[in-house]
Amino acid sequence: MPLVGFGLWKVTKSSYQTVYEAIKAGYRLFDGAGDYGNEKEAGEGVRRAIQDGLVKREDLFHILMQNFTGHSKVKSITKKQLELWGIDYFDLFLIHFPIALQYVDPAHRYPPEWFDDNGAVQLQNTPLQETWGALEELVDEGFAKNIGLSNFSGSLILDVLRYARIEPQVLQVELHPYLTQTGLVDLAKTLGIAITAYSSFGPQGYVELSMDKGAALLTTLPVVTEVAQKHEKTPAQVLLRWATQRGIAVVPKSNNVQRLQENLGSESFDLDLDEIKSISALNIDLRLNNPAEIDPRLAIFA
Amino acid sequence: MPLVGFGLWKVTKSSYQTVYEAIKAGYRLFDGAGDYGNEKEAGEGVRRAIQDGLVKREDLFHILMQNFTGHSKVKSITKKQLELWGIDYFDLFLIHFPIALQYVDPAHRYPPEWFDDNGAVQLQNTPLQETWGALEELVDEGFAKNIGLSNFSGSLILDVLRYARIEPQVLQVELHPYLTQTGLVDLAKTLGIAITAYSSFGPQGYVELSMDKGAALLTTLPVVTEVAQKHEKTPAQVLLRWATQRGIAVVPKSNNVQRLQENLGSESFDLDLDEIKSISALNIDLRLNNPAEIDPRLAIFA
Repeated sequence: MPLVGFGLWKVTKSSYQTVYEAIKAGYRLFDGAGDYGNEKEAGEGVRRAIQDGLVKREDLFHILMQNFTGHSKVKSITKKQLELWGIDYFDLFLIHFPIALQYVDPAHRYPPEWFDDNGAVQLQNTPLQETWGALEELVDEGFAKNIGLSNFSGSLILDVLRYARIEPQVLQVELHPYLTQTGLVDLAKTLGIAITAYSSFGPQGYVELSMDKGAALLTTLPVVTEVAQKHEKTPAQVLLRWATQRGIAVVPKSNNVQRLQENLGSESFDLDLDEIKSISALNIDLRLNNPAEIDPRLAIFA
Repeated sequence: MPLVGFGLWKVTKSSYQTVYEAIKAGYRLFDGAGDYGNEKEAGEGVRRAIQDGLVKREDLFHILMQNFTGHSKVKSITKKQLELWGIDYFDLFLIHFPIALQYVDPAHRYPPEWFDDNGAVQLQNTPLQETWGALEELVDEGFAKNIGLSNFSGSLILDVLRYARIEPQVLQVELHPYLTQTGLVDLAKTLGIAITAYSSFGPQGYVELSMDKGAALLTTLPVVTEVAQKHEKTPAQVLLRWATQRGIAVVPKSNNVQRLQENLGSESFDLDLDEIKSISALNIDLRLNNPAEIDPRLAIFA
């Protein structure tokens, strides 16, 4: 799995062109989710890139996420997602959140999103073990090469491992210098689960959603800009390297071709150990993506 | 369930006398666990108190905890615990930690504790759902009136609720002004699960174990002592009332008869809302009881 991928969250306009440009720039990993609402367009970008001979399917690494749901629905939803992307298998299929939202028939609404027609969150009592078993069958039948978890915490990951026939390969979580999650990173390392960080730039991606909690942008902090200056890199590159140098994968997005290339090029230098430490010292356990703020029954990080 | 109970952790010497004195002082709730290693002695205190006519069994509320283990072992271990206590049922039976330690035959070692004969932690792959089902059978058969969880976090509690036929009634967690756990308290309230705080005095109970992490004793902090002085109460009483006034039960222990009475009497006054707030502002997310420090595979709070 490449350590730097392209994240499709909030890539809503011209995903087609964005994905095509990203492949052209050298991206091989794409991180998407049903809820991002751009699977078909992103898939068109992939198809055109393959048609144009830029890349072959087997060169790409497709990560897809879906919220967890009853056993009987997992396969049909995954097939729908594969169809939207126009591919035969996902390289990695993740449970997006440890939250069992009520199943929504795609004919009624797709992506299902968080809210029903009346703006309320509807849950269903599907135990995680049931959904994990369905994900294992996706592997058995070739629809997913690997399966994993997103937004999961320690005690629940440990329970999955007790019943997993096929173990989770990847854990994708919010992780940036304001939320370093050292305990979770250590646990994943102990368990042999790879970590992918999302929201590597911290509050920056949340400003447009008014969810940045007023935190200063990481790219403007002296501890980041000074390190960037020293290495003649951009602050964004420093933030990505802060993760990847420790083996943590990242999935930034950008609509700007130059920044696309900068992000991908963030593996071309190394930070000093004390630079990594000083950036990690920014940690204030600031979590920007917390479903408890949508509905108190979704307090998965409590 | 009484809001102020008596906790049996670290009550190792003369538990018999301590429990008897506690009942005499008016305690009706006792909070024990297999791992505390004092079930038989504590039970003797109860038996003598009943014999002496101080109290009847039905006046008492017995909480017992055990680490979770395979379905087939839960009943036999519970029966053993009831036998040690000399009673027919527990009022509340809790899973002590969301950790599946390898089963130890009581004939070999009881309590099983955390370490095997070679000082290593041995785990077994028993899914939590299996153990929860066994706890439900304890209720069906009258060995436990209620069942619940201890040291569980949000996402795992939510998964238990998806498969529970009998819902957890109580969540017992470390909770004091240095670790206010507001998110978890809010979630439990939303879910209708009562909270019991353990380690209400924070670092104090950990000094003798060299596990206090150098934190200043809560009872010495001006914000606590000044409130105590104003209400003509002890700092310990203030710390207990800070919890119970918000409906959070507490289970302090003491070997000192006067303090026993003071703790029990901590419900006899009310703090002002701004006093509760100023004490809550001491929160630094300081967790003193974290199994990850024993073994990295036990990072249940990561």
